[in-house]
Order: sequence, then C-alpha cells, then structure tokens
Amino acid sequence: MKAVRLHGSGGLERLTVAAMDEPGAPQKGEILVRLHASSLNFHDYLVAIGKIPTADGLIPLSDGAGVVEGVGEGVSDFTVGDRVVSCFFPEWQNGTAVPSVVATVPGDTVDGYARERVVRPAHWFTHAPKNYSHAEAATLTTAGLAAWRALVVDGPLKAGETVLALGTGGVSIFALQFAKMMGASVIVTSSSDEKLAHARSLGADHTINYKQHPQWAEQVLALTNGRGVDHVIEVGGPDTLPQSINACRIGGHIAFIGVLTGFSGPIPTVALLTHQARLQGLQVGNRQQQIEMIRALDANNMKPVIDKTFPLAELGEAFSYEAAGGHFGKICIDI
Amino acid sequence: MKAVRLHGSGGLERLTVAAMDEPGAPQKGEILVRLHASSLNFHDYLVAIGKIPTADGLIPLSDGAGVVEGVGEGVSDFTVGDRVVSCFFPEWQNGTAVPSVVATVPGDTVDGYARERVVRPAHWFTHAPKNYSHAEAATLTTAGLAAWRALVVDGPLKAGETVLALGTGGVSIFALQFAKMMGASVIVTSSSDEKLAHARSLGADHTINYKQHPQWAEQVLALTNGRGVDHVIEVGGPDTLPQSINACRIGGHIAFIGVLTGFSGPIPTVALLTHQARLQGLQVGNRQQQIEMIRALDANNMKPVIDKTFPLAELGEAFSYEAAGGHFGKICIDI
Amino acid sequence: MKAVRLHGSGGLERLTVAAMDEPGAPQKGEILVRLHASSLNFHDYLVAIGKIPTADGLIPLSDGAGVVEGVGEGVSDFTVGDRVVSCFFPEWQNGTAVPSVVATVPGDTVDGYARERVVRPAHWFTHAPKNYSHAEAATLTTAGLAAWRALVVDGPLKAGETVLALGTGGVSIFALQFAKMMGASVIVTSSSDEKLAHARSLGADHTINYKQHPQWAEQVLALTNGRGVDHVIEVGGPDTLPQSINACRIGGHIAFIGVLTGFSGPIPTVALLTHQARLQGLQVGNRQQQIEMIRALDANNMKPVIDKTFPLAELGEAFSYEAAGGHFGKICIDI
Amino acid sequence: MKAVRLHGSGGLERLTVAAMDEPGAPQKGEILVRLHASSLNFHDYLVAIGKIPTADGLIPLSDGAGVVEGVGEGVSDFTVGDRVVSCFFPEWQNGTAVPSVVATVPGDTVDGYARERVVRPAHWFTHAPKNYSHAEAATLTTAGLAAWRALVVDGPLKAGETVLALGTGGVSIFALQFAKMMGASVIVTSSSDEKLAHARSLGADHTINYKQHPQWAEQVLALTNGRGVDHVIEVGGPDTLPQSINACRIGGHIAFIGVLTGFSGPIPTVALLTHQARLQGLQVGNRQQQIEMIRALDANNMKPVIDKTFPLAELGEAFSYEAAGGHFGKICIDI
Repeated sequence: MKAVRLHGSGGLERLTVAAMDEPGAPQKGEILVRLHASSLNFHDYLVAIGKIPTADGLIPLSDGAGVVEGVGEGVSDFTVGDRVVSCFFPEWQNGTAVPSVVATVPGDTVDGYARERVVRPAHWFTHAPKNYSHAEAATLTTAGLAAWRALVVDGPLKAGETVLALGTGGVSIFALQFAKMMGASVIVTSSSDEKLAHARSLGADHTINYKQHPQWAEQVLALTNGRGVDHVIEVGGPDTLPQSINACRIGGHIAFIGVLTGFSGPIPTVALLTHQARLQGLQVGNRQQQIEMIRALDANNMKPVIDKTFPLAELGEAFSYEAAGGHFGKICIDI
Repeated sequence: MKAVRLHGSGGLERLTVAAMDEPGAPQKGEILVRLHASSLNFHDYLVAIGKIPTADGLIPLSDGAGVVEGVGEGVSDFTVGDRVVSCFFPEWQNGTAVPSVVATVPGDTVDGYARERVVRPAHWFTHAPKNYSHAEAATLTTAGLAAWRALVVDGPLKAGETVLALGTGGVSIFALQFAKMMGASVIVTSSSDEKLAHARSLGADHTINYKQHPQWAEQVLALTNGRGVDHVIEVGGPDTLPQSINACRIGGHIAFIGVLTGFSGPIPTVALLTHQARLQGLQVGNRQQQIEMIRALDANNMKPVIDKTFPLAELGEAFSYEAAGGHFGKICIDI
Repeated sequence: MKAVRLHGSGGLERLTVAAMDEPGAPQKGEILVRLHASSLNFHDYLVAIGKIPTADGLIPLSDGAGVVEGVGEGVSDFTVGDRVVSCFFPEWQNGTAVPSVVATVPGDTVDGYARERVVRPAHWFTHAPKNYSHAEAATLTTAGLAAWRALVVDGPLKAGETVLALGTGGVSIFALQFAKMMGASVIVTSSSDEKLAHARSLGADHTINYKQHPQWAEQVLALTNGRGVDHVIEVGGPDTLPQSINACRIGGHIAFIGVLTGFSGPIPTVALLTHQARLQGLQVGNRQQQIEMIRALDANNMKPVIDKTFPLAELGEAFSYEAAGGHFGKICIDI
Repeated sequence: MKAVRLHGSGGLERLTVAAMDEPGAPQKGEILVRLHASSLNFHDYLVAIGKIPTADGLIPLSDGAGVVEGVGEGVSDFTVGDRVVSCFFPEWQNGTAVPSVVATVPGDTVDGYARERVVRPAHWFTHAPKNYSHAEAATLTTAGLAAWRALVVDGPLKAGETVLALGTGGVSIFALQFAKMMGASVIVTSSSDEKLAHARSLGADHTINYKQHPQWAEQVLALTNGRGVDHVIEVGGPDTLPQSINACRIGGHIAFIGVLTGFSGPIPTVALLTHQARLQGLQVGNRQQQIEMIRALDANNMKPVIDKTFPLAELGEAFSYEAAGGHFGKICIDI
C-alpha cells in the first residue's frame, strides 16, 4: 500500500509518496481501518513544512476517516463495516488533560493517516456521524472538535449569546455552525465580501470586512450596543488578539486556538485585565467530547463545509492551496 | 382602578374584584407600569385557593406585563413607553440566592399584578422581548424563566443532549422550545395523543402517551438505547419522580420544579444513588437570568405557546380551567 | 495462597476461606500486587450478606492495598516495590461516568481483594500516599474517595462554608477531615457523646447528639444563624434525608451517599424545591480524582482514622463489628 | 473634617489635605461611617500619580474601614456601632459583572475613603471580620478580595493543588495565606532572601530567589516534578507572564491581576496554547464574594500581614514607600 512520508528539511518538497507494507492483523483491543479521507489543518501544514519538528519519515495528517476492516479480540465498540473517524489526542479519552495523554498525536509525535490502511487501538477512533461522507467525517478530528470544545465545553455557550468568529477557515466555520445550532448570534470577519456573503448564507447574523474596517473591534462593539461579544474564536494570534480583547464583553471568553499570524507578539495585557477576560488556550479536545459532538451533529443533521478535495497524491498541492488562504471551510484529502 | 384581592379561606371564591386608589407618582428609582397582561402558574393557583397561605387581601398573580407610564428620578434602564415584564423574585438580581432576596414574591409575600397599574422599583422589571404581545411577555416571569434556568443555567444544556419533558404545561412546553433552540433532542409525555401531536409540531423528537405506557421510563430508555436522558423537566413530583430517576442517565440531571402530584411521597433513594443523579430543586430564577433569556428569545424569534386568554374579571374561571389540566402551554389574563 | 469467597445464600456464613492458585505473571499492561490490607464499607457488608446479589464464589472487598511484586510489559506508572491502593471503579479513569466504565467493581461485579495476591491492569491501582500503612491506604478506595468527591469535586467546597456530617462512620470522618483541611466549619451528629468528643478532637466545630435532639435539623439551623449548611454528607438515607433537606441553606448541596436506613422512603419533595437544594447521588469516584485526593493527603500529612483492624481470617467478625455500628472511622483488614 | 484630594497633574504632589464639610444625615438605605483606616494598592498609586486619570479634586483610596455612626431608614444589615469595610465595586453585589455595576469605584470614578466620615448606601459596605483592627479590615477591600477571587472563585482551588505566588506584595501574601488555609502547596518568588524566609514562616512550601534564578520557571517545574503549578498569581504583567505560562501545568490557571511591570508587552502566545492555559484577567470581585471571604477569615482566625502603617497626613510618604517596593504584605493608613 502507499503512504506519504516527510523526509529532509524545509518546505513541502519534504512530502514523498512511498510504498509500505500492509499492517498485520489487529491484535487484542485493536482495529484495522481502511482510510478513505483526511483533511488539512494549519497544524498539519506546520508539520509538513518542518516548522513543527518531527521524526524523519513521519507519516503526516492527524485527521483520518474510513471503514473498519478488522477487529481484534476484546473490541466491543466497533464491528467490521463501521464507519469511523480518528481522534487528535487518541490517549486523551475523557476528563482533564495530563501530560501523558496529550503526548500522542498522530501526524505529529506518531505516524498519522496519510496512508491507505492502519491498525490502531480501537479507542483511537470514534464512530462517524450518520450520513457523513468519509471526507466530511475527516473534518471533525481537529477543526470540528476544536470549535466544539471552544464553544460548547469551554464556553459554555448559551442561546442568545454572541460569538465572534475570526475569518472563514475550518475552525471558524464550524464555530459559526455550532453557534447557530445552539441559538447564538454570530459575527464573522473576513477580507472578502464573497466569503462574508457565504457566511451569511450559513446563518451569520453580522459580517465585517476587516479590509474596509481595519478597526473591526469598533464595529463589533457597535453591533453589540457597546457591550462586546461573549465568545471570540481567536485563530489569528498576535496580530488579531489585541482587537479580540477589546471586542469582548466584561468577563468575556476568548478561545485562543490560533497561531496564523505568529507564535508571539505584543499584547495589551492591561486590556485583558480591565475586560476581566478569560483567554483560554486550547488544543482540540478529548475522545468523549468528540463522541458528544458527533451526537449533536446526528441530532441536528449538520454537515461541515468542504471547500475542495484533493487526491492523496496531490497532498503538496493541497497544502499550497491551504497556505494561499483562499479557502472557505475545510480542505479535504481523498485516499 | 380595579384589582383582584384574596379574602377569607378556601377555594376560588376567595377572589374578589375591588376598587383601589391609583398609585402615586413614581419616586426615586421607581417606575409606574400600566399592566396589560398576566399569566397563570400552578403556584398562583395554590395561592388563589389558599393552599399557600398569604396575607388577607393580597393581590395575586406573579406575572405582569405592560407599559411604563412614568419614571422616577435616577431610573436609567427604562423610559416612558417601554414594554416591560415583571420578575418573580424582584430582589434577586444576580448570582446565587440568599434568604433576603427570595423573601419577596409578588402575588405571594407581597401584592402581585392582578391590577391595572402599579408603582414599583425599576429593578423589579425587565424589558419585554421585541415583537411580543403583553400576554406573551407575561408568560416569561415564572414558567419561561423556570424552564430557562432548569436547562440553560442549571443544566447546562449542550447540543445533542436529550431532554425529557413531563406533560405539556407551561414549563414543559417552554423547555421543549428552549431545548430545540439549543440543538437538543426532546421526549415529551402526555396522556393525550392530540397534545403529543402538538408537541411534535413544535419539534419534539419523540412522544410517549403515558396512559398507554404507564411504565414510561422504560420507553424513555428504549428511545435512548438504554442510556437514559441527560435532563428531566420534573414537574410532577412524588408520583412521577421514581420513573424520572430511572429514565435518566448515569450522572443525569433532574430539574425538580413540580408539586403537581403532591408535596411529598415515597422516593426510591437508592436509585438516585446508583444513577448518580443530580436532583436539583429550583424555583424560577433571578433577574439577570431573565435578561439573558429574553436576549435568546429576541435572537431566535421564539414565541411562547398560549392556550387561552381570559379577561381579568374572569380570573376565577381561568383558574378553574387551569386546574382542569386540559391546557397545552400557557393560560393568560388580559388586564 | 488463600482467599475468601462468598457461597450460598444469606448471612455472613456465606464467607468461606479457600485455597486458590497463585496468579500467573503479569502480562502487558498488568501488575502483580501482594495485598496487605483492605477495609470495610457498608457496600461490602451488603455484598457479604447477599443483599447485593453477586456471582457465586465471588472474592469480596473493594478496597485493597499492598506492594507491587511484578510489572508487565509497557507499564510505566509503577515499579516493583511501589506501594499501591486499588480503585473502586477501575475502568473509570477520568471525566464523567458512562455505563461501560462503572460496570466493573472489584468485590461486586468482579473478584475483589480478600486475597493475598492479584494480577490486574496497572490502571486499576494508584500509588498510595507517602508514609501510609497498608491499612491506612486501603481506607481510601471507597470511603476516602466518596468523601473527597462529595466535598471537593461535587461541592466544590470553599473555605468558610459549613459542612454537616451525619454520624461518625468512615465517610463522615473523612469528610470532617477534608473539610477542616480546606478551611470549612463542620457540624457532626451522633448518638454518642464519646464519639462527639472524638469528632471535636479532630476539629469538628459543633456537635449534636441526635438522641438528645431528635429534631437535629433545628439545632443545625440555630448553629448557623438560621441560614443552614452549605453541604450535607447524607449517609443515612430515607430516615435522615427529610431533616437533611431542612438543615441546608437555600441552594445548598446534599451529597447523597447512603442507604444505611433503607433503600427508599417518604421524602418531603416540596422542601427540596423551596430550599432549591441540590441532591447529588454519588458512588465513589474515578481514578484521576483518587490521584488528586492522594496528592492532598501527601501535602497535608492527613491520616485516616482507623477504629480497629481484624485479620483476614476473622472477616466475618469484622463485618459483625461493622454491622453493630459502634465504630468511629474505619474498620480495616490485615491480609 | 479633613480629607485628602488630588489636584493638578503629575506625581504625588497632587495629594493635598483639605477641610471639607461633614456629611449630612444618612437618608433611606444609607449609613454614616466614621472611617478609621485604609490601605494602599498599586491601583491607588496609579490614581495618586495621575497615571489613571480621574476627576480633579477626587478623594483617593478604595479601601475604607470604620464604624457605623448612623443608619438611614430601611437599613437592616447594619446598626450603629457595627464595624464595617468598604467594597471596591460597591454596585457589583453578586453574580457576573455587567458594565453598569463596575463603573463605580471609590477612589477612582467616585470619591474614595481618604477622609474621616462618609455617607454611602449601606450595600457599599460589608461587616468587618471579628477581632480585626480597622487597619486589618481595610486590607480586604482590594488586595484581599483579589486574592480570594483568584483562588477560591476563579480557581477554584482544591486541597493538594500547587499555587505559584509572584512576589510578596499584598495580593501575593493573601494568596499564600488563602492557599494554605485550603490545603494547597505554595511556591513564592522574591528577590530577597529575608522576604522568602518570612514567606516560609507563613507556610510557603517552597521559595525561589529570582535574582539567583532568573529562569525561575525552570525552578518551578523542577519543584513540581516537571508538571507545573495549578494556579499562578500573576501580578507582574508583561515581564513575568512568559515565565508564568511556562511554569503552569497543562490546563493550568493564571490569575492575571497585575500591571506592575507595564501595561503591554511581548507575550509567547503559542505557549499559552500548548499549555492549554487559562489566562483569567480579573479586577477584585463582588460584594457577595467579600462576604464569603470574611466568613472564611472568621472561621479560620486568619489575619492579614501588615508591613507598616502611616497616618493619613503622611499619605504621600506612604505611597513613596509603596513605590519603593520594599514592603512585605500590606501598607495601611490610619485615619
């Protein structure tokens, strides 16, 4: 079978397609999964270009969705033919994170899912939502769960609250959809009027073109009668965080997910204090949260927004397309 | 102006219509409200028939909605012409309850809103939702806020969870609507197929006729794959609580609101323990919660379900109609 | 080696000492533990006398403490010589409970620790506190963790709050000690002045002899200026719950742990409602909570109170002593 | 009577002692308080030197403690002779903050307590702890409540957790004392071995001289077996925050209180994300929290640490002493 591996240093030329042996039969507690799809996140891109250092020869991609083809002894959650989706932190099953359970990340600290088949412990996967394509299911592992945790777990979001989603990438569009599912109001920012129109068609109550309004925090305050929003989906990082702080209400919540604009920068810490804001760093979530998210997707027939799908052989092109930043929602990989 | 007062002992004949002086001008921090509507709750009924003892001559009814006709010095929240709705615990403004702030209940420990005009501290009211009739607004004070608090505050409800609402009274129908607003699944019970059809038209995912299925907890377990529900809106009391406990999941939440079937009774406490259930007694909520509920109603254009409206002069008939139990949703009073 | 097993029906004569084979070598993920101590809980007693039905031949006792004598492949948490203590729900590692993880209870649904040696998955145990005897460690599995979860997890207890502990059994005395460790005030009830004096020597701020004051809830209200307590450790069940509800403040928390006085009974549900009380059914807790409890014990040098220790061969006498109810704190078993 | 007022621009020479009229009799809901003490916070210093702009002629100082000398109509919480202490946000009574209730800050947006007598609404004060001097009581309004909220409300602190307190100013020493009151472990940093010895005498488990260990976060990790602390009392701001993030565990809590080292600066936002840390900006707290803190102080006989007390006439000297930074605990003012 084929897999993609990362070799050498620097840039997307690190991606190489390689033949590899089929995995053996699943042992006790394991399942054999035929992977059919993955999706791309900024984290995968940083791994792919070597900005996040990994083992030489690593198989990238944290997201993986497919079909169970074999079941080891003692596995009760799955049977052959089940459609499944991978977990970002497969050893973080439930509750709070401790170091040992967040040390394992497929596509980062261990081999990921840019491959056709894999044998892994059954608890590294959950069932996929009903009526989801494999590509749709693959979007949940990282982007879907990050948005769910930000709003539903950490929030916790209540109907009637206002959510500010920065941009129209995968996490932000999931956040828009979850927020509307739960009766919240949503403000979306983008530099593209076309994308903002798309966001409105998904239910966004207000949109702001930040090219036309570089001081978009002021627009947010105006849209909320000076009160500020209850939750910010902060995927930008240092360049956007100062305005995100000003855009949130006293006691507001900033889900800090992003490093799109850098890994550090000048932050107006006094504004955090006067806003009594909660800046909550988060990385995806645990398996129990993924199960609960999928229950909500099933109950509400919500489908993710997929911008474009590339075959695995064009993974490099897919990353280039992601890096260009023109997408709306998720970029998927067909395996 | 006219008001209704409660005199003597026993039964609805205690209700008497009486003339009373117009209230004076609002003083510092007060507003004058022209009341246009109220609505009935089981609590009002217990007061009306004297089962909850009150002062002789008390003006009943906790719910009140109307228009601000005068504003005292220092009032900044309201201006003349604003449409407002009363608070059940007007001195419980925010946060946790302490005895002093739950001692004041209009229509119980102090005069209520079965009257045409009233002068009260401004903080005893909130703004009504946009586009609400006075009757619709009046349903929020008690039944609306009890359901909101049960699910959104105490829950806290997450999309994808399952809510079991007992019956089709005011609180249960509000709970059904709030649960659907937040992406939850809902099971409703009733003895009437017609009411269950009505509940389904409002979004109920499953319904159970408890006359046909006296062991309705088993039906609930079957509908949830043996798991049980996440939240129960328990308005029945002793006769329904044993099954409510069995119908909820491990770690589930039972919002204990009701005394419809009595004030005490045999409870299988060991089931509470093995289910690790949380039985949360609640009485309505605070003013800040009412403000947040109304924000959610505005954001989602949700309207309460009114079964029937009676003029104030027919308050006795209205209570009789309530006691008969044939209603679906709220019974309102036009003042 | 020797073990105790339960055979036949009815009474403590079900306990029989039997020879059994030594366990084999620990496999992948497993440890071999030489058990040195256990302790008794009311749950163990109900199992022993057959009131909680179990498999014929079951080895009883949920609590187990000892020394690691062998370590299987892939075990990183423990090494040979480590002192360990068992978990009540060994598959409930963290977070919220789901049915599958609370199905396994040593000494109930699977063999327990009335034996000399056992091979079990490493994650079925945690490290024992430093400087603890095996008997002291064994008290933590059930009684210690139940009290910890009631106050610290479910509470959550804050300094300055008041805790009411019913009686002087294992859970209540742990609750007294944890409450004092965290700066709370504690009221203890008992029918014995001697036990109440003992409780005061452990830090109890107030004590009530309920034989002298059968209406002890009134005493509690008097001791709290009419306010009521913040938390009740409710181990009694139906006979004490009505007073426990009345003894707690508006919005108070009743940790419902107990069935000492029966499995069901008449409960004044309306009082639960007017007190807006939270009646939280609980059964022990998860492994992560046990780890956190043990960290607190280490940080505060807190030791459990052991009433008496019996050798394993006298397990029947130990249960009789427990059933007589004269103990203060824990009854332990030396293996 | 005499008061201190702030006039002109720049520096402590803005402080002027002025005669002012005695306040009139307390009206409805008001009390007359004879102020006997205040205490200094960094916020008061920023106001005094004009760095936080205020009205010309403002009476500074947010902290005020004294005796009730008169009681207006309808006041039930206090009687003449009661010893009371002021609230930092006197209109924030309970629950979450909304803009209107944090707009009023004595000694900032309205006149404070650098005066002999004041008439204010009764709800602007709480009872002082029993057995407290006025100076001791005055330390609670700002520094005491900030530390309490950081650990007990926002934390929420559990026994056995580890708290890192930066420096030995008022908030940090309160945090040390509250943490020990609740069974936590505490690490204190300072540049003075003498102060660190003092901290140890108050119960600090570990101390770090950050002059000797400029990379003190590494020391913190070493002291916690690489795990990091559960809570950081972050009073420094931009210069210390990067190390505070690294010193906290996955999912840890940083109570962001301080601006001692500036109002903004470069922050390693990616570290916040990988630590999944919660950076919670906070400003003091509400009146209900102050009442609960005082209950805890009473229950535990805890007294604040006062470094030095100055007479009101030497307020400028007191501020200079504060700015020099040599103090340990609180600086008080005798009025």
